Amino acid sequence: MVNVAILGFGTVGSGVAEVLTKNGGLIDQRVDDLLRLKYILDVRDFPDSPYKDCFVKDFSVIENDPEVDIVVETIGGAKIALDFTTRALKAGKSVVTSNKELVATHGYELLQLAKEHGVSYLFEASVGGGIPILRPLTSCLAANELTQVTGILNGTTNYILTRMIKAGLTFEQALKEAQDNGYAEKDPTADVDGHDACRKICILAALSFGQHVYPDQVPTEGIRNVTLEDVAYADSCGYKIKLLGRCIRQPEGKVCAFVAPHLVPASNPLSGVEDVFNAIAVTGNAIGDVMFYGRGAGKLPTASAVVADVIDIAKDLKRDHRNEWGPGATDLVVSPDIITSRWYVRAQAPVDQVRLACGDIQLLARAGAPAGEVAFLTAAMTEPQIKDKLQSLDVRSRFRVLD
Amino acid sequence: MVNVAILGFGTVGSGVAEVLTKNGGLIDQRVDDLLRLKYILDVRDFPDSPYKDCFVKDFSVIENDPEVDIVVETIGGAKIALDFTTRALKAGKSVVTSNKELVATHGYELLQLAKEHGVSYLFEASVGGGIPILRPLTSCLAANELTQVTGILNGTTNYILTRMIKAGLTFEQALKEAQDNGYAEKDPTADVDGHDACRKICILAALSFGQHVYPDQVPTEGIRNVTLEDVAYADSCGYKIKLLGRCIRQPEGKVCAFVAPHLVPASNPLSGVEDVFNAIAVTGNAIGDVMFYGRGAGKLPTASAVVADVIDIAKDLKRDHRNEWGPGATDLVVSPDIITSRWYVRAQAPVDQVRLACGDIQLLARAGAPAGEVAFLTAAMTEPQIKDKLQSLDVRSRFRVLD
Repeated sequence: MVNVAILGFGTVGSGVAEVLTKNGGLIDQRVDDLLRLKYILDVRDFPDSPYKDCFVKDFSVIENDPEVDIVVETIGGAKIALDFTTRALKAGKSVVTSNKELVATHGYELLQLAKEHGVSYLFEASVGGGIPILRPLTSCLAANELTQVTGILNGTTNYILTRMIKAGLTFEQALKEAQDNGYAEKDPTADVDGHDACRKICILAALSFGQHVYPDQVPTEGIRNVTLEDVAYADSCGYKIKLLGRCIRQPEGKVCAFVAPHLVPASNPLSGVEDVFNAIAVTGNAIGDVMFYGRGAGKLPTASAVVADVIDIAKDLKRDHRNEWGPGATDLVVSPDIITSRWYVRAQAPVDQVRLACGDIQLLARAGAPAGEVAFLTAAMTEPQIKDKLQSLDVRSRFRVLD
Repeated sequence: MVNVAILGFGTVGSGVAEVLTKNGGLIDQRVDDLLRLKYILDVRDFPDSPYKDCFVKDFSVIENDPEVDIVVETIGGAKIALDFTTRALKAGKSVVTSNKELVATHGYELLQLAKEHGVSYLFEASVGGGIPILRPLTSCLAANELTQVTGILNGTTNYILTRMIKAGLTFEQALKEAQDNGYAEKDPTADVDGHDACRKICILAALSFGQHVYPDQVPTEGIRNVTLEDVAYADSCGYKIKLLGRCIRQPEGKVCAFVAPHLVPASNPLSGVEDVFNAIAVTGNAIGDVMFYGRGAGKLPTASAVVADVIDIAKDLKRDHRNEWGPGATDLVVSPDIITSRWYVRAQAPVDQVRLACGDIQLLARAGAPAGEVAFLTAAMTEPQIKDKLQSLDVRSRFRVLD
């Protein structure tokens, strides 16, 4: 018998309970043991829940019960969740989580703590929702030196951009629609400003390159500055605007990581990833490019990933299931200033002035462009170089092109 | 020290040696032991190879060397490979292979043999080349009851179809080009007639649904009957023609599996999979749809998957790494006759006669269609139903639509 406790009966926590129940028979078969949901911790009462006998309000009940083998943390945030995760690991219980904020900010120390206590800390659901990505990175691609990870990591912003592209909605209209459909929070900051994608690229960078990358080391730009004009110009040259999290291996073990809107060419499979779907492209020195695609959020998809981690631990409680990476460092993460790419620019300026400033450019057209508006793609250069060239121009938008 | 022997120094075998060498440092780190390439079995001489000291011509040297822990079988076919795999497993050595023919035809018995001898038989590289798919199916998606797998499983046919769609080449021209580029064999039968895709869908079905599915139980249609006319009509309604391997869970543990060209709508991410790339879409009752995408063949991508299996075994030689499934049965696999779908039909017939025969249809158009040619999409129905409706018509092509 393997006993599980769920912390937090919100969307993901209740999804985990549902999957454990619905697929209980096949899960027990795969674990080759009985997996039992023993506790659910929540401050609220759920008198009508089918799990009503499992609810407790005091974490120490779980912490002190030697029968509990695996704790599923689906509280979110980095305060109570940090406290409970720390205490669970110290009590010799493995912890599984979907909490990207906690992993991105405290992953290294929690992995160390798990190691010290001979237990596991797994977090497949923290990136890409249900998409299998972390375990493939560390096992199926283990024969590779990984060089790059590029992902559409946030479903909310991808939904908003898709609606701007396909339905011609403005950012504000598309955000409102996303909120009405439950795809965006009332306070959409974490999604719209790229913080959620930032946490996920930190986790991907740590697993791919072996050292903790902290969110505050990663330059992050959201999608508030993407306009319908930009969407139309991008479309005219066969590109889609996507919010990408990227990490790129650098010499001497350094890492370049950033989050920003990009123009993605139609030939890149990331350009076809629409609505709330996520996709993560990984480049390795043997495999070349692979891509993982699916629902990046949602109750049951996320629960699917959480329960996969639970099964993995439960199959062999004594086995070493550790993800592991080294500590971060202030000089580990290098600025994306070194990455050259072509640039998309929209400006209010005469074409002659633009050519004088930027040299060889590819002009773009859109229906209904006002007099004096110009949009173009540049040759490949770094961000300081393009900034320098554009300084005399009235620039309205500037995004990288993913080549 | 973990010792590896490679059987067959062809494309994949030499790729495995190359990856083991090139990424040796990081592989040893991931295994937490020294992984050594001890033998390469090949009948040919390679006096200038950097591995020249490893070559042997007699399998019994490997079979009888107790130092050899892992045998990599990259011979192909189901004769010598079967003999050597059987002997290696009986000698207590784990076996890793990219040999889809052997796994599809003898997987059950070889997995049983591995189990009896407490060793592993792994074959991630047998499906999707380097794409991580088998391990994600059995571990990351373990919380799901899987209901469907749909894949573009053969790079050669996908390359041919892509060149027909994009460059307007006929099947014969595209095949010739694929042969000139080394993407197709001189005898292209196994690829073009769908046998390679068939073997792969058998392996996917066995892992997803738990019982061995034999290639001769799976109705298989290749792409020889796909014409440029069909490609043009499909394009006119936003579809791409793709060769799909499909398996679908049926009631009472039965399986429906088949290989056939399909019209795939642009909204389905499989439609964007071009050239020699493969992609596998999996549906589970918690995760919904996920897709895995990458290079389905090639020296280093395939070697990447082989070496990942080697690492997995080497990390813990005593651990149970078994894939496992039950025996096949003559009544396990049900005919795709029960699967309803819309159909694409091209015929030489008056439209009135077609409407009379097929009822509600969506007519398609293409530039330069000769008089009397008609192409259309039907309502959803089974194959016996559509055959019955079409029997009085002069039908030139008929393919399923993937909805």
